[in-house]
Amino acid sequence: MGNVAKSEDFSEWFNSVIKDAKLCDLRYNIKGFIVIMPWAMKSIERIYSLYCAELEKYSHEPAFFPSLVHEKSFSAEKEHVEGFIPEVFWVTEVGTAKLEERYALKPTGEACIYPMYSLWINGIADLPLKIYQRGWVWRHETKATKPFIRGREFLWIEAHNVFADKAAMEKQMPEDFAIAKSVIWERLGVPFIFLRRPQWDKFAGAVDTFAMDTLMPDGKVLQIGSTHLLGTNFSKAYNITYTDSTNKPSSAWQTCYGPGINRIYAAMFSVHGDDKGLVLPIDVAPTQVVIVPIIKKGSEKEVNGAAEDLRTALSAKFRVQADLSDQTPGFKYNKWEQLGVPIRVEIGMRDIASGSAVIVARDTGAKRSVPLDKIAHEIEHEGKEMQKRMMEKSSAFLTCSLELAHNFDEAVKMVSAGKMVAMPFCSEGMDGAECAKKLKEGSSCDARGVAVNHAGCKLPDTHSLEGKKCIVCGKKANVTMWLSRQY
Amino acid sequence: MGNVAKSEDFSEWFNSVIKDAKLCDLRYNIKGFIVIMPWAMKSIERIYSLYCAELEKYSHEPAFFPSLVHEKSFSAEKEHVEGFIPEVFWVTEVGTAKLEERYALKPTGEACIYPMYSLWINGIADLPLKIYQRGWVWRHETKATKPFIRGREFLWIEAHNVFADKAAMEKQMPEDFAIAKSVIWERLGVPFIFLRRPQWDKFAGAVDTFAMDTLMPDGKVLQIGSTHLLGTNFSKAYNITYTDSTNKPSSAWQTCYGPGINRIYAAMFSVHGDDKGLVLPIDVAPTQVVIVPIIKKGSEKEVNGAAEDLRTALSAKFRVQADLSDQTPGFKYNKWEQLGVPIRVEIGMRDIASGSAVIVARDTGAKRSVPLDKIAHEIEHEGKEMQKRMMEKSSAFLTCSLELAHNFDEAVKMVSAGKMVAMPFCSEGMDGAECAKKLKEGSSCDARGVAVNHAGCKLPDTHSLEGKKCIVCGKKANVTMWLSRQY
Repeated sequence: MGNVAKSEDFSEWFNSVIKDAKLCDLRYNIKGFIVIMPWAMKSIERIYSLYCAELEKYSHEPAFFPSLVHEKSFSAEKEHVEGFIPEVFWVTEVGTAKLEERYALKPTGEACIYPMYSLWINGIADLPLKIYQRGWVWRHETKATKPFIRGREFLWIEAHNVFADKAAMEKQMPEDFAIAKSVIWERLGVPFIFLRRPQWDKFAGAVDTFAMDTLMPDGKVLQIGSTHLLGTNFSKAYNITYTDSTNKPSSAWQTCYGPGINRIYAAMFSVHGDDKGLVLPIDVAPTQVVIVPIIKKGSEKEVNGAAEDLRTALSAKFRVQADLSDQTPGFKYNKWEQLGVPIRVEIGMRDIASGSAVIVARDTGAKRSVPLDKIAHEIEHEGKEMQKRMMEKSSAFLTCSLELAHNFDEAVKMVSAGKMVAMPFCSEGMDGAECAKKLKEGSSCDARGVAVNHAGCKLPDTHSLEGKKCIVCGKKANVTMWLSRQY
Repeated sequence: MGNVAKSEDFSEWFNSVIKDAKLCDLRYNIKGFIVIMPWAMKSIERIYSLYCAELEKYSHEPAFFPSLVHEKSFSAEKEHVEGFIPEVFWVTEVGTAKLEERYALKPTGEACIYPMYSLWINGIADLPLKIYQRGWVWRHETKATKPFIRGREFLWIEAHNVFADKAAMEKQMPEDFAIAKSVIWERLGVPFIFLRRPQWDKFAGAVDTFAMDTLMPDGKVLQIGSTHLLGTNFSKAYNITYTDSTNKPSSAWQTCYGPGINRIYAAMFSVHGDDKGLVLPIDVAPTQVVIVPIIKKGSEKEVNGAAEDLRTALSAKFRVQADLSDQTPGFKYNKWEQLGVPIRVEIGMRDIASGSAVIVARDTGAKRSVPLDKIAHEIEHEGKEMQKRMMEKSSAFLTCSLELAHNFDEAVKMVSAGKMVAMPFCSEGMDGAECAKKLKEGSSCDARGVAVNHAGCKLPDTHSLEGKKCIVCGKKANVTMWLSRQY
């Protein structure tokens, strides 16, 4: 890193951190496809574990659906197909032969999964059905790709739920929020707002889309996941019908949920990182503790031995490495700080003599000497304190970036300064689309939707916006709309 | 299940068990592609966890490489490309446009990964490099597909290692065996033989192929994973070169390793299952303990309450379900036996009164009453004993299926009876290919290779085969070749 200040040039910082910590390699020879390197993949696997466990806590079950989707399955839901077809990669040949039909590389699971649901769901006893899949999908994005944030292949989870009625479907929305909160905020320390997207910005084929938006350090919002109420749109298109208690066939009600694992990872390291590099939450850090021996002339054997013993002792509780390489302590400090390892332990002859070691917190750099017989406890304590500090900091950043705007110019100014802005707006229905378009054209600001919940931040009191007029068209404002620049 | 005896018609048993326990759905509308259902996927996820942890214990690190491979990357290693191209699915279109170049859906990782390794490896300090990826690949198999055993999309792990010299490369072979043994045999109870494949049957582009072969209940062998010594074939083709200590560029030495997760799962449930259905090893059973309340008139509330309390108490240690549905106990026994849940707990009024419950082992059906205050301990003990019994049984089956043959007719007879047969054979080199071909034509038997190791079985003493002549051509036999029918 060295010379790139996150606060001054976030984009450059992002690129540097990816390169220096070897998070991914951008030199793969197909545009928009990246190789995810071990240091990132280890954290990503942990994020998957946390998310899958939380989904299962809420009665979701894992399954595996194929990556290829028959073209005819794709065409059932008209809006959906129109939304996704332009981005589809098509398989048309096998070996040296041309296929008689085209297969889509799955850009999202609906067209793949719902024909199966149609077979599986018959009676009320088959509901609710709550299934998720971890994996990756492919979309030929036309916007500029950006590592972990926008790729033509990306890692995610998709959950697809089916319910007997509208009320049951609607309850899934707060549940999806709760799942996101417990992982993204409580474990990864990434705060977010949960917004209902305006009607003109919903998922192709959905009745309503809700999304988790977090604010990146450059003041641009990143959608890290979304949940869609599908109503009966897809169940009618794919014939997902159950026989109700009166023996009549009813269309089922559906939701789908897509936490973007690559984006969650990107948000996590972007929100917590500093000018030295990554700062990783202790739950998902590949290495939680690194031990650096401080060697004076002639003490190498004894100090390295003590470092190795300490590594062995701490391994029962933590993911630990001892860096016994030939580099200087300063070099090692830099290296492990860049990689974001939460706790560094320094041990030298003086420490050995006094039966202690020095522990250093990655976020503050604060050092303190702790007795060796209490070090596991002290590290655990420091890890928890660090997590708290990281959450306070990320929460403060988002909370302080939320503002109210009472007129167009004020809104634009605030958004340009990297804020997320709440403002009076005529409508989140299709009749508001024209105002959103004007806003976008005049300011590059996007209407992100109406806040329905939030995790890890405090929303400003929007009382003063009530009864005001839409800041674009001047008509009666029916909603408080959040505005921002976006990825 | 009911009417299908595994020993009489394994193929029919296999299909029934898949259907009755809902392991996968074969009705997906692209041939050779299956949907893996939750009950199977939960075990498969556990198999992944075990395997990935074991790979990491041996210093492998996870990474993610793209699913699409540029055609030009594919053409570098001639034998490899000839071996795989006939099975490749090609992406040729995007949205409504034709691509200028074709992308292969990855049938295996070499052509995707090695161009990156070429960039990553420069000096001796970059070696060894040991990376794995969990995921799935696509091969347009022309042989008949069979669920979990041969599909056009299948789940696996692939590890790709790079070393500085031949000796280091060769050490990876026993390490790959050790990793397989600790998961496939020690945790899943599936015994296997580790064979060096004859030269005419090796991986396209490899110097030597070693494979884990297990025997399915119908006496046909299933390859559940393989490890390939690539020598410098691929490093020369993909320019994976490092500067050695004398500052000269050297080609690196490579191995790759592919445990077939779908096949390992298939072998596991095939080897252990019985005429009632699945019998799952306790480490990977989605539910380890099912509690069935035994309800007499009027006792419903009390007994269901006790079952629910027991579920809560046992949840700290096991994956437990209490089946409180309205079905009869007999129906529930059948259901959970079909699903292979290792331990059933029965609890009724009499048990409650005596502070006990009955535990039933899935494999033997043996019942015993245990005090409630010791039940967790007793279940743990029973689980371990069951694992031992399952391993003894599967080991005995494979060991008893291994025979020696001293002449062609004897070999064919034994293989037809479902045995794996060791016999004197002229050569495992290309000069033995003609004899293998004759053997195949005359008997449908395949020469699987020379045993280099084994896990969970005892090989017969092959002493009596020494100094004999090849049972096909009558020339001097240089090797003891294993013969079998195969999947």
